[in-house]
Amino acid sequence: MTYCVGVLVRDGLVMIADTRTNAGLDNISTYRKLHLFVSPGDRALALASAGNLSVSQAVISLLQEGTENPDTGQLETIHDAPTMFKAAQLVGRAIRQVRAIHGPGLQEAELRFDVSFLFGGQIKGGPMRLYMIYSAGNFIECSHDAPFLQVGEHKYGKPILDRAVSHGTDLYDALKIALISMDSTMRSNLSVGLPIDIVVIRRDALATEVVHRIDVGEPYFHDLRERWSTALRAAHMAIPSPPYGRPQGSVLGRNGF
Amino acid sequence: MTYCVGVLVRDGLVMIADTRTNAGLDNISTYRKLHLFVSPGDRALALASAGNLSVSQAVISLLQEGTENPDTGQLETIHDAPTMFKAAQLVGRAIRQVRAIHGPGLQEAELRFDVSFLFGGQIKGGPMRLYMIYSAGNFIECSHDAPFLQVGEHKYGKPILDRAVSHGTDLYDALKIALISMDSTMRSNLSVGLPIDIVVIRRDALATEVVHRIDVGEPYFHDLRERWSTALRAAHMAIPSPPYGRPQGSVLGRNGF
Repeated sequence: MTYCVGVLVRDGLVMIADTRTNAGLDNISTYRKLHLFVSPGDRALALASAGNLSVSQAVISLLQEGTENPDTGQLETIHDAPTMFKAAQLVGRAIRQVRAIHGPGLQEAELRFDVSFLFGGQIKGGPMRLYMIYSAGNFIECSHDAPFLQVGEHKYGKPILDRAVSHGTDLYDALKIALISMDSTMRSNLSVGLPIDIVVIRRDALATEVVHRIDVGEPYFHDLRERWSTALRAAHMAIPSPPYGRPQGSVLGRNGF
Repeated sequence: MTYCVGVLVRDGLVMIADTRTNAGLDNISTYRKLHLFVSPGDRALALASAGNLSVSQAVISLLQEGTENPDTGQLETIHDAPTMFKAAQLVGRAIRQVRAIHGPGLQEAELRFDVSFLFGGQIKGGPMRLYMIYSAGNFIECSHDAPFLQVGEHKYGKPILDRAVSHGTDLYDALKIALISMDSTMRSNLSVGLPIDIVVIRRDALATEVVHRIDVGEPYFHDLRERWSTALRAAHMAIPSPPYGRPQGSVLGRNGF
């Protein structure tokens, strides 16, 4: 499994991804799922993948080597795409190309063509954007109302994002909340695990501000996990006990309701 | 969708369930999913269901009207089962009977035979138990190590249970934590909704201690949701900002990693 989350706030973009892959529970490895395409001053793009690793790796190779534009016949790479929208379309096209090659074989093996991406960043002259790209190559864009997108094992880590992230959230608070969301996911799903890759791209910087890998035993992340657990315990302890009464006199029938 | 959670602690059992059912997003109703079978002094049993409503309702009717024991030919109801284990077996048998009747028709309509139950409580002379019963009629029992079980939309509400519940948790704290877990689920999945049915059964009481329905606008639950949101915000604000640096001088290559 995988968990990746992207948060797009006023000041920029945060994207984080775990690195655990598994082919069955008895075959677990570490693979990078967060990829960067950066030419400082021109573009800073981040692509995080969930799903079948052979598919996502092939997509990333196609994006770098180029895919042919069916209209113009030209080879286009992610390094040349003129806008974020066109770059997202390019990712979609790469997914469809990989499907054309590997889809039938996967189907014969009764495997799903299962892949999804978070794709975000900024290209010179255009706005910063964050997309979620599906296995059919179509995509949706992150909005101010819900300024985050997730792929992979998204449920365990969603409640904190729903509650804590807004468009006005500080960029490094967004990173912190994304890490809390990752922590909740890792606690509940063993197939999501350390190390975690992080990127922070400030709006209009056209460069990465943080590129970091959190590995086992890193003090900050360890401390965050401890503090969050302690705070949650304190938070529920501070809520008054339910007022729904202690022993009542009322006797219920055979079926109490 | 549905969310039900049962917590079995030293002092007793808490079970809560939402009441929202939907056949498609445009057909939403309120149905009780938490059912009680109580004869004070003899037994206090709670059964919460997730899945196909026609299946779970049929199972409950069979449990009350009785199913024939294939070995003895006798009609057995949930009111007569001598132990919790035998009662859980009875639930399993009822599920299999319903499958025998409705399974083929559901299959023809390309619908899954989808049902699961939480079943907990105590029968005179035996220990208090909590089971999760699957659609095949087999079941697992709750243990001290993980003193809760969930059916339905279980992921959003699991992180707080993982962190906060242990066998030694106070009975009404367990109820409070279950309500927080329900709140997280309702926020992230619209098909889980109020009212919420609650039951608390104290160990060895052989009677219910609380039977309550939380409806829209109830002050305690409203306050719990507010306090929890506020506490979560305070909790993440109190965690120090990540130390992963502000702007670096380092320039990344075309593919930053």
